[in-house]
Amino acid sequence: MRTRGAAILVIGDEILSGRTQDTNTGYIARWLGQLGISVREARTVSDIEAEIVAAVRTLSARYDYVFTTGGIGPTHDDITADSMARAFNVGIHYHPTAFAELIARYASGNIGTFNEARQRMARVPFGAALIRNSLSVAPGFQIENVFVMAGIPAVMQAMLEDVRPRLVAGAKLSSRTVSVFLGEGRIAKGLAALQKQFPDVPLGSYPFSRDGRFGTSLVARGNDENRLDAAAEALRLMIREVGGEPLDEEATVT
Amino acid sequence: MRTRGAAILVIGDEILSGRTQDTNTGYIARWLGQLGISVREARTVSDIEAEIVAAVRTLSARYDYVFTTGGIGPTHDDITADSMARAFNVGIHYHPTAFAELIARYASGNIGTFNEARQRMARVPFGAALIRNSLSVAPGFQIENVFVMAGIPAVMQAMLEDVRPRLVAGAKLSSRTVSVFLGEGRIAKGLAALQKQFPDVPLGSYPFSRDGRFGTSLVARGNDENRLDAAAEALRLMIREVGGEPLDEEATVT
Repeated sequence: MRTRGAAILVIGDEILSGRTQDTNTGYIARWLGQLGISVREARTVSDIEAEIVAAVRTLSARYDYVFTTGGIGPTHDDITADSMARAFNVGIHYHPTAFAELIARYASGNIGTFNEARQRMARVPFGAALIRNSLSVAPGFQIENVFVMAGIPAVMQAMLEDVRPRLVAGAKLSSRTVSVFLGEGRIAKGLAALQKQFPDVPLGSYPFSRDGRFGTSLVARGNDENRLDAAAEALRLMIREVGGEPLDEEATVT
Repeated sequence: MRTRGAAILVIGDEILSGRTQDTNTGYIARWLGQLGISVREARTVSDIEAEIVAAVRTLSARYDYVFTTGGIGPTHDDITADSMARAFNVGIHYHPTAFAELIARYASGNIGTFNEARQRMARVPFGAALIRNSLSVAPGFQIENVFVMAGIPAVMQAMLEDVRPRLVAGAKLSSRTVSVFLGEGRIAKGLAALQKQFPDVPLGSYPFSRDGRFGTSLVARGNDENRLDAAAEALRLMIREVGGEPLDEEATVT
């Protein structure tokens, strides 16, 4: 099994203006990591059809999967569904299942009428498969290898669960993290030497500051748990050699 | 004056894996917004030279400015400087000023020796102008319209201050925000009508959930304060017409 590649496309002026902090990218990346699918690239574009179309065509052609967030609500600036239809050169319609489910939702709760604006949320490109929204009904959809989801994190996360069985899992990437309160410059030479010793285990170096102290987290990634253990042990040894005290952090999938 | 366009390029596997939450994009976007420069697109790529080169060439050609974060530290996976040299087809060297400043830094503090790894932080493409780092000395650099900065937020923010005088400010975009605890579907029709009434004032609709209640923030953007005030008043009126209570939120630059 190979580690498959995905891209994330965030759609929305509110992210590009800095008004809203995107957290969906990190969530999707960690969630996909658990399935052995790596995110290779992420893009954020504004609510302009030509921008969305160009980005999704490029990413869809290049990666196994594309995950988009945002722009599928009921307001005039929600243009993702139309943009996806355009990107794949298909028409767009009110999906009968989505429409029926939304009718039922608005008939039952005290949440207003199923007006024209809300009906827009049932519009999906021809041939698209719905992505269920267990939280607020209005669906996402899949068109080819592109999964079109909501921007609100809780709704997006619910949609991901519906997407899970459609994905082909890859080899799960594990990792070991060893941190130390030393600057990167103290360990860079030893780290480069270890990278040569472990060419099959990519080693990353991530500076951090915590409680006013600078430190570095060294992360070894791979599929072979024994090699990861060996690399982590070698990292700890190297850190001690330059006078540091290695801090083991919980092994996390990254 | 026009609202100028910028792109942000985030470089680093740790962002794409979800290990680290990017906050630089939002910070840069808000900071540029204060100068009347809008971010049109953001991309995140991994620590692979060909990916960095392709992205920076595309973005540099397309936008007035490009701001990159990450990959300029001392370790073997810090390849941004080399990638920029490659992207612009120039060589790379140890910048004499940067080298001298780093020598002074490591001579003075109790922060270790100016070893080979740390010397790497003085390497910049030929012809690049340094970006000062008032926090930890190791500089960023400007090459053509691309500003190459550190990934650590505090350092990146310090570098931005050094970049400020090099930017041509645009017409500052102001905004008014009116929020309401109603779903987007209740106000979408009225909002679309208002957008036709105010074609010169882009109106955005951003759903939120707060304390378990769903709501919507409506944002009017533009340069004309009088038009913004008129649009905000019209938004409040429209919200009352559909039975909502408009919540004024502080006018923020977005």
